Amino acid sequence: MPPVEPGLAIIGYGKIAREQHKPALDASPNWHLAATVDPVNRAEGVPAFTDLATFLREMPQVGAVALCTPPQVRFAVAREALLAGKHVLLEKPPGTTVSEVMTLRRIAADRGLSLFAAWHSQFAPGIPGARDWLAGRHVTGITVTWREDVRRWHPGQDWIFAPGGTGVFDPGINAYSILTHILPVALYTTEAELDFPANRDTPLAARLKMLSEDGAPVDLDFDFRETGVQTWDMQITTDDGVMQLSQGGATIIAGGRTIAAESSLSGEYDRIYTRFAQLIARGESDVDLAPFRHVADAMMLGRRKQTDAFEW
Amino acid sequence: MPPVEPGLAIIGYGKIAREQHKPALDASPNWHLAATVDPVNRAEGVPAFTDLATFLREMPQVGAVALCTPPQVRFAVAREALLAGKHVLLEKPPGTTVSEVMTLRRIAADRGLSLFAAWHSQFAPGIPGARDWLAGRHVTGITVTWREDVRRWHPGQDWIFAPGGTGVFDPGINAYSILTHILPVALYTTEAELDFPANRDTPLAARLKMLSEDGAPVDLDFDFRETGVQTWDMQITTDDGVMQLSQGGATIIAGGRTIAAESSLSGEYDRIYTRFAQLIARGESDVDLAPFRHVADAMMLGRRKQTDAFEW
Repeated sequence: MPPVEPGLAIIGYGKIAREQHKPALDASPNWHLAATVDPVNRAEGVPAFTDLATFLREMPQVGAVALCTPPQVRFAVAREALLAGKHVLLEKPPGTTVSEVMTLRRIAADRGLSLFAAWHSQFAPGIPGARDWLAGRHVTGITVTWREDVRRWHPGQDWIFAPGGTGVFDPGINAYSILTHILPVALYTTEAELDFPANRDTPLAARLKMLSEDGAPVDLDFDFRETGVQTWDMQITTDDGVMQLSQGGATIIAGGRTIAAESSLSGEYDRIYTRFAQLIARGESDVDLAPFRHVADAMMLGRRKQTDAFEW
Repeated sequence: MPPVEPGLAIIGYGKIAREQHKPALDASPNWHLAATVDPVNRAEGVPAFTDLATFLREMPQVGAVALCTPPQVRFAVAREALLAGKHVLLEKPPGTTVSEVMTLRRIAADRGLSLFAAWHSQFAPGIPGARDWLAGRHVTGITVTWREDVRRWHPGQDWIFAPGGTGVFDPGINAYSILTHILPVALYTTEAELDFPANRDTPLAARLKMLSEDGAPVDLDFDFRETGVQTWDMQITTDDGVMQLSQGGATIIAGGRTIAAESSLSGEYDRIYTRFAQLIARGESDVDLAPFRHVADAMMLGRRKQTDAFEW
């Protein structure tokens, strides 16, 4: 596939942009980093802008942008970029409300632009194999354990506890995005117990129950307070064997057979940028709302428990 | 239109069923009440069942059901009815999560059955006229005031404050259902401040801000603590006049012209049952998820404020 556009600008050059997007762009045959737009941070060796309007005016030849800002400002920036004729990649979560993302999808469709709501966990090494393995089987039960230390992975990122930041659902949505992608059956939430710190607006932990459309129970344990072993695991039991997914999808064993055995999740963002290039080449968008809808459902249905204040 | 089915059973024979559904069925040329299913309540003169399974076994000729239970049990009952081959009308809200309702929609589609998520406020007297009036105009601002006394309209109904009951969004969703139906442009929520009583799981009041897709501001004030004048009003300002909707849609004045001037909302359920008969005759479903999605969005995005305990 030839380079589809003369480069891409990253808007919001924070942790995820520096650690994942930049290396993936540098390694890609389809892309190069053309500019950064960020009030503070910048990448070496490429033009840096502190505001979107100036970038749009001074580098009109750049046809695509990746949005890596906190979700609270993603909609306004994405809308402005689409109205300026850019293809847009949205980091996860794609916004602060489902309706907002649907609005972006319509704006992109009206203008023939590609909008890609990227769920990076759907690009983990073993995901296609996991999906294939499950396709012919009947799921009878699922447990999901997604426990990490917020101080280690999101140090000082207050946006995660502000309205629209979704708290522990920020990692939890990765589990949802895997489930909705690999399962042959839809899920819906039946119970949600949400721990809200007294001084924060989003939950620090959540215990959830879902059911599959045909009645299989799903238990989910999301926790941001895990200082010991970090766990991103799920076990999916079927009528024909068990699948064990570990390390967020880097390792997957199904029916005793190894589907993936990577030591890390490297490659997720390489595949994301390949997909984004394909979408643009085909004139398509890819906006999977299911993971985000499950968060909204859990927050609507949830029983709130107030817990101790959370400080970094 | 001839009678489409040999009668309909009401499942959950509570306040809304007795006060609205029963009179509408009695007055309808298309329908008659064939049975009730309710552990406690019953209608005079028709077979009464205390559980769904017995009704399904003993009156298989009844082709349609209306679900008027609290939303927390609606999904399980609706699923069982659809699997038994019944057309299903869902009172609002259609469930406890958006995903649940999407699951019902697929089950109905797979079986060629009609599923109707009825938003009664969309059937208020002036709604078609309001929609026509707005169709050619550019909306520049909206205010919504939806203030009522929960003790008067939902006396002792604890389900409304239990998880899945949505609290003040139970009336508030009527405002959403009007807006999404009559406006020519989509909305999304940008701010939500939610008052949660210390002893309850759903909000007693909500102050919300939305924007239209093209930037018009929308202010919404939902409150369950209004013991004075009960208010279900909205004002929609356009580039060509103002629309004033009062009493939940019974009275509408637009650009100085009276679109509706009813003394009450009577007729909503007559039109709902006419619509349900049409849907069945045409082999269609009508499941408008937008109002419910706005509630989920507000609950996901909302800033929670704890207020005094609420007791009846």
